[in-house]
Amino acid sequence: MGTITKAIEMLNYFSHRRPEIGLSEFVRLIGRDKATVHRHLSELERNGFLEQHPVTRAYRLGPAILRLSGVRETTHPLRSVVRPIVTELAQEVGELVHFSLLQGQTLSPVFHADPKMHGTQVHFDEAELLPLHATASGLALLAFAPKKLTDRVLAGPLERFTESTITDPDILRDLMEKVRETGCSKLEQGFDNEVSSHGAPIFGPDGELLGALSIAVPHVRMNPEKSAAIREALKRGVMKITRSIGGNIPPRHAGKWGTDA
Amino acid sequence: MGTITKAIEMLNYFSHRRPEIGLSEFVRLIGRDKATVHRHLSELERNGFLEQHPVTRAYRLGPAILRLSGVRETTHPLRSVVRPIVTELAQEVGELVHFSLLQGQTLSPVFHADPKMHGTQVHFDEAELLPLHATASGLALLAFAPKKLTDRVLAGPLERFTESTITDPDILRDLMEKVRETGCSKLEQGFDNEVSSHGAPIFGPDGELLGALSIAVPHVRMNPEKSAAIREALKRGVMKITRSIGGNIPPRHAGKWGTDA
Repeated sequence: MGTITKAIEMLNYFSHRRPEIGLSEFVRLIGRDKATVHRHLSELERNGFLEQHPVTRAYRLGPAILRLSGVRETTHPLRSVVRPIVTELAQEVGELVHFSLLQGQTLSPVFHADPKMHGTQVHFDEAELLPLHATASGLALLAFAPKKLTDRVLAGPLERFTESTITDPDILRDLMEKVRETGCSKLEQGFDNEVSSHGAPIFGPDGELLGALSIAVPHVRMNPEKSAAIREALKRGVMKITRSIGGNIPPRHAGKWGTDA
Repeated sequence: MGTITKAIEMLNYFSHRRPEIGLSEFVRLIGRDKATVHRHLSELERNGFLEQHPVTRAYRLGPAILRLSGVRETTHPLRSVVRPIVTELAQEVGELVHFSLLQGQTLSPVFHADPKMHGTQVHFDEAELLPLHATASGLALLAFAPKKLTDRVLAGPLERFTESTITDPDILRDLMEKVRETGCSKLEQGFDNEVSSHGAPIFGPDGELLGALSIAVPHVRMNPEKSAAIREALKRGVMKITRSIGGNIPPRHAGKWGTDA
């Protein structure tokens, strides 16, 4: 692993549950020597990717990230475009909807909306990178991904998150075949024992695979009617997002999520 | 300069005017050898800080930035809090309002709103880091900054951006004195020949200097009445933002921007 990767991967330790991390906690989390960790933290801090709490000196994500995300959003609006669509969809189905972007061999969450209409909710942490093989979003992407990416992911390692995580490449390939037919994936308890999800892919302006839209439901609340309603909602969502971002569904997959007419 | 800094500083080349940069353009911009530039770009791409255009292979800011800014916003909401206040203020005064965060010895823009009510507008690029000594925002910060930061900035180098940029530390110190009294800074044509701005500091929950609120006007439109109206608007803005982020104005500066009663 290069020095740059070592340093910027430290940013991935921040999450909703862990918004601030002190030097010694970082040393423990990363398992590298204190001097190296401190040098990397200082360099990230000097560049605005981290900032230190004025009193505790603990680190948190810094202002440069806000600035750069502002630049990306004005030049390639995505979150601002996806936000209202995801929020509306969540209200319609009454369940948690999230949108994530493909980032190498993982999924990077961008926005989620939770209508909080039920006694139990899916806990979604936008900080967490999602695995492709063990989430409905990921499966929806793998089904429509270039062969190179699919092969690389299925070659493993395929981490097991729950007893229901599918780690057999052949079974995953069969599932992908089905997703390609219907346009939507369904994965029960594959990433979290208490959650079942459906997902669908989103294509960008050049017909490239961009990310995935997904609806996650507490497993106890999933039933055939809900599943059918979620698939319909996902399809509406895919068409809306595709139109808003000027995306292009590759001709061979046209009609799987609706028609523009 | 460390390797990490060299790599992540490449992210600063992206702006509204330059949303995508190809490999050879990067080599030209940075003036380093192609192999090094390519290695750094690849490492940033692998970590999701850059992504490549599917057709042209040009680089643009990547999905990891959206994810990390989402994490920062949920754990330390700032843009979402500042956005409506800045937008409302811009409508009230009919001029461009922006909010920036202190990042080391520069200012990192977070959000700006432009009501577009006049024939000419200030062009504001959120991608650009702002100098402390040559902007109204920066001067507002320097006036209330810890002596250490002020001394370091005034020790120079103090870059000259226009003929009106003040680069004499003594004159800057006199100005800062005035800003400390009134709570607001005013700088005419210091950063851009066609722009005059007012600024005021924003303090965080621990009374620490967080950033600055600023109103920028085409210089030709600036007059004493406008200046007075802008100062009042800035003060209202400072109080609103401070309340919304749970900020604390240090007791020795209390009342300079209004009272909470």
